Amino acid sequence: MSKYSIGIDFGTESARAILVRVENGEEVATSVYTYRDGVIDEFLPGTDIKLEPDWALQNPADYIEALKETIPELLNKSGVREEDIIGIGIDFTSCTMLPIDKEGTPLCMLDEYRDNPHSWVKLWKHHAAQPEADRINEVARERKEDFLSRYGGKYSSEWFFSKALQILNEAPKIYQAADRLIEGADWIVLQLTGKERRNSCTAGYKALWDPERGFPSKDFFRALDPRFENVVDEKMSKDIYFLGEKAGGLTTRMACLTRLKRGTPVAVGNVDAHVSVPAATVTGPGKMVMIMGTSICHMMVDKELRLIPGICGVVKEGILPGYYGYEAGQSAVGDIFAWFVKNCVPGEYFEEANKRNIDIHRVLEERASHLKVGESGLLALDWWNGNRSVLVDADLSGLLLGATLETKPEEIYRALIEATAFGTYKIINTFEENGVKIRELYACGGLPERNKLLMQIYADVTGREIRIAASSQTPALGSAMFGAVAAGKENGGYDNIIEAAKKMAHLKEERFIPNEKNHLLYQKIYAEYERLHDYFGRGENEVMKKLKEIKKASKE
Amino acid sequence: MSKYSIGIDFGTESARAILVRVENGEEVATSVYTYRDGVIDEFLPGTDIKLEPDWALQNPADYIEALKETIPELLNKSGVREEDIIGIGIDFTSCTMLPIDKEGTPLCMLDEYRDNPHSWVKLWKHHAAQPEADRINEVARERKEDFLSRYGGKYSSEWFFSKALQILNEAPKIYQAADRLIEGADWIVLQLTGKERRNSCTAGYKALWDPERGFPSKDFFRALDPRFENVVDEKMSKDIYFLGEKAGGLTTRMACLTRLKRGTPVAVGNVDAHVSVPAATVTGPGKMVMIMGTSICHMMVDKELRLIPGICGVVKEGILPGYYGYEAGQSAVGDIFAWFVKNCVPGEYFEEANKRNIDIHRVLEERASHLKVGESGLLALDWWNGNRSVLVDADLSGLLLGATLETKPEEIYRALIEATAFGTYKIINTFEENGVKIRELYACGGLPERNKLLMQIYADVTGREIRIAASSQTPALGSAMFGAVAAGKENGGYDNIIEAAKKMAHLKEERFIPNEKNHLLYQKIYAEYERLHDYFGRGENEVMKKLKEIKKASKE
Repeated sequence: MSKYSIGIDFGTESARAILVRVENGEEVATSVYTYRDGVIDEFLPGTDIKLEPDWALQNPADYIEALKETIPELLNKSGVREEDIIGIGIDFTSCTMLPIDKEGTPLCMLDEYRDNPHSWVKLWKHHAAQPEADRINEVARERKEDFLSRYGGKYSSEWFFSKALQILNEAPKIYQAADRLIEGADWIVLQLTGKERRNSCTAGYKALWDPERGFPSKDFFRALDPRFENVVDEKMSKDIYFLGEKAGGLTTRMACLTRLKRGTPVAVGNVDAHVSVPAATVTGPGKMVMIMGTSICHMMVDKELRLIPGICGVVKEGILPGYYGYEAGQSAVGDIFAWFVKNCVPGEYFEEANKRNIDIHRVLEERASHLKVGESGLLALDWWNGNRSVLVDADLSGLLLGATLETKPEEIYRALIEATAFGTYKIINTFEENGVKIRELYACGGLPERNKLLMQIYADVTGREIRIAASSQTPALGSAMFGAVAAGKENGGYDNIIEAAKKMAHLKEERFIPNEKNHLLYQKIYAEYERLHDYFGRGENEVMKKLKEIKKASKE
Repeated sequence: MSKYSIGIDFGTESARAILVRVENGEEVATSVYTYRDGVIDEFLPGTDIKLEPDWALQNPADYIEALKETIPELLNKSGVREEDIIGIGIDFTSCTMLPIDKEGTPLCMLDEYRDNPHSWVKLWKHHAAQPEADRINEVARERKEDFLSRYGGKYSSEWFFSKALQILNEAPKIYQAADRLIEGADWIVLQLTGKERRNSCTAGYKALWDPERGFPSKDFFRALDPRFENVVDEKMSKDIYFLGEKAGGLTTRMACLTRLKRGTPVAVGNVDAHVSVPAATVTGPGKMVMIMGTSICHMMVDKELRLIPGICGVVKEGILPGYYGYEAGQSAVGDIFAWFVKNCVPGEYFEEANKRNIDIHRVLEERASHLKVGESGLLALDWWNGNRSVLVDADLSGLLLGATLETKPEEIYRALIEATAFGTYKIINTFEENGVKIRELYACGGLPERNKLLMQIYADVTGREIRIAASSQTPALGSAMFGAVAAGKENGGYDNIIEAAKKMAHLKEERFIPNEKNHLLYQKIYAEYERLHDYFGRGENEVMKKLKEIKKASKE
């Protein structure tokens, strides 16, 4: 009798759930729930309370609704019986956090607080806590806190303490009223199991926690704000659970809601990018996993701790047991191509796409694929949304160089793809220069399935073979794998994620093998990329920042 | 009884003729003749003889046809009698040159030679003589010829001796067979009057002639090629006539063809950009005339000879009597906006243009005009077709910097306009730094009439008031003015071009006054433009050239 596990990936616009056969990872059923309130960035739902710029909230009711809708649908679609579901795993965007009361109820669900935007879930891309992030960086540098070096030298406005401090600064009553500030991943696990089981991944990557050193000192938090001194003790928890551990069993209430068996094992929560690593078959060093979509997350594990400048973070046990987990990233990839298609592509290209009933990206890809390396004479810097790694600078901007009166849209399209490949290559080289070797690349996410040219360009630019994860739902598969690990071998699951990956994770047959001739040509062009990268990115010419200052001033 | 003169502007695709009242410059009638063979850049007309890349020819029969069609039409339309036409002037693109026999017949009109492309008219934008231009520059530099300094340090592939030397190199028989090599302007005058009256403008700007020093030495030409030693004596003429002189009277044959009176005075030929200066009312120093279309020509006169790096040329009496005439230029302006509209503007903008029945440029201009200075955060280098002044480098290419995921097409459009304005400002500043003061700007050509935003941006960037020539046919008006000067005061015309300009040239009422606040903001952005200009344009980072080399190699 086959056993099954369920993985749910809580994304930005929707939650995607899959039901997977434990013995071989076969995806038996899929269910998607699109959040009713989606990304809240204009008005609080059902009110005329307007949000400030850079705000991005979610409604936690959407998460519960997702559980209620998707899990029964998985059972219905597959015909699998509830007793054959041996485990559940979930992953979440991060840092996505919320204030809750003693009972675990989000403050935004209480009449008393719901009109205050700070009572809602702050989504990962809520960018309004930049002043707090600046303060954290300033104080950390002043105090010579050594944790900054594990985060590429900079704490982000997206992360936990920036958002927590913003609540304290702007809504002290909400801060006061919150019994807990908690990551979305951990809140769902709390809902499912009734237990607060904070995971090592978000704690490590977003909240400065380290298994050996714990959280930063009270002195540090006091230096940020005296009221913030005891944030960890008062609003969080020092009990951190490692990935692969069982958080608990499904509560009676949640069993009713989801139609699963009470007590079904639930794994400790995880983050979408991190959970994708074993789902892409990677369980050891030397292999970089790229989660490729609107942006790219670059994930690596290594036995050694290396402080690599400009990465997002390195966390012990942050991705896989027994390894240091490294995360780096590019803040816009698919987003750049989407911008280009929306703003820079003539109508005749869309007409062709319509006529042939194919996507506009296919039209551009097809035309771009006829170009030889270097034929366009174009070179771009992929900084349309700043640079996350390795410059860690949101104020950088995009550059296109080499245009002539003969330049065609498909040439620009290809130059933009190449620019993002150069950006990834720069990250790879930075890892290697700092002692972390990368032999192969593993890709998952939406882009690799949609754009073969892009994958070939990445292989040619980086000079490395690229394999593609077989699942098109890599995070949900990874969560299901952790669900099977939470169940344990004795219940038909696995002892650890390595074993689960051996059986449940697969690759497509397709390989992207670097073309040596193209790689050599790209080396030449990359040398020019790197020179511009350093010229504009490392302070030699601050024109991008100056233009942003002028832009800001023009709006005042 | 009013007197009239006729001006004909021989352009790239057509000839534009106007009939003008001499006393006040009123344009009484207009006639346009579109050349049947247009620009010949693929096959010789009526043959399958294919041209090499970068070739651009014309058929001289088109010029004669233009005379035959337009002049009678002017008479018909206006009802003016032939005896009231006191003079004719013509201007031409340049350097546009052709080989002719002893009778003045173009070699391409003779069966013996017509299958050889070198027997045809080489149009100004025939760029296939680059190897010859390189040779001229190399030899001139080796021999330390001082004339190069009058041409911004570089002789162009478009100019007379490059083209002549190409004929010698590639078609020695044509070179041999040619009794004369002659500019199109001078050939038309020869046709009209039966007299070879080479003009000082094309001789000076395109053929290295100087009223005091004459042509370069025989030694120089011999160093280029021993067969080229006597090119001036054998194929040209040392008799050069100044602008404003009368070339002769209309021949009987031409009188029949045009229905004008035999003996009607014909002015010495001129060049489109140069003839526009007095037609834009400018007859002295301090005022720069910009002929604004696909590219911009910047024309100045000054009492002193200044050697200004990177201009196209300075020629004594090259524009107006008694002055040194300066020419500089930008190789692409309107061409960049046309490229942008063709390659980078989404269909919805065209839909709006269609719906409102306005030009697509109006839609972009309207949207761009709502942007404040600096609001887009974009900055461009206007080098889509290289840089003519002041870098004199065809291998430079376009750059756009500052793009974000929010960047809109109208923002890029405005940034491109601003980039061309910065390019003009750089030219103005280079003139001023070398002692030629520029107080005001005068614009003519297609762009000023069509794009008010562009004109205001030029005023704001340069901090100078801009006036617009009243005539939309400035070159033809200028030619008609020179026609009236050729007639002389005694025949109802004028003694000189200054007097003609006082009466016949006018400005529109409209003035573009620089906005001081915008000018100050633009100064900041221009400082960034200038830094990038020097960084990419003066050898610090040769990335544009390297990319062009890679591009070239990719096609081999």
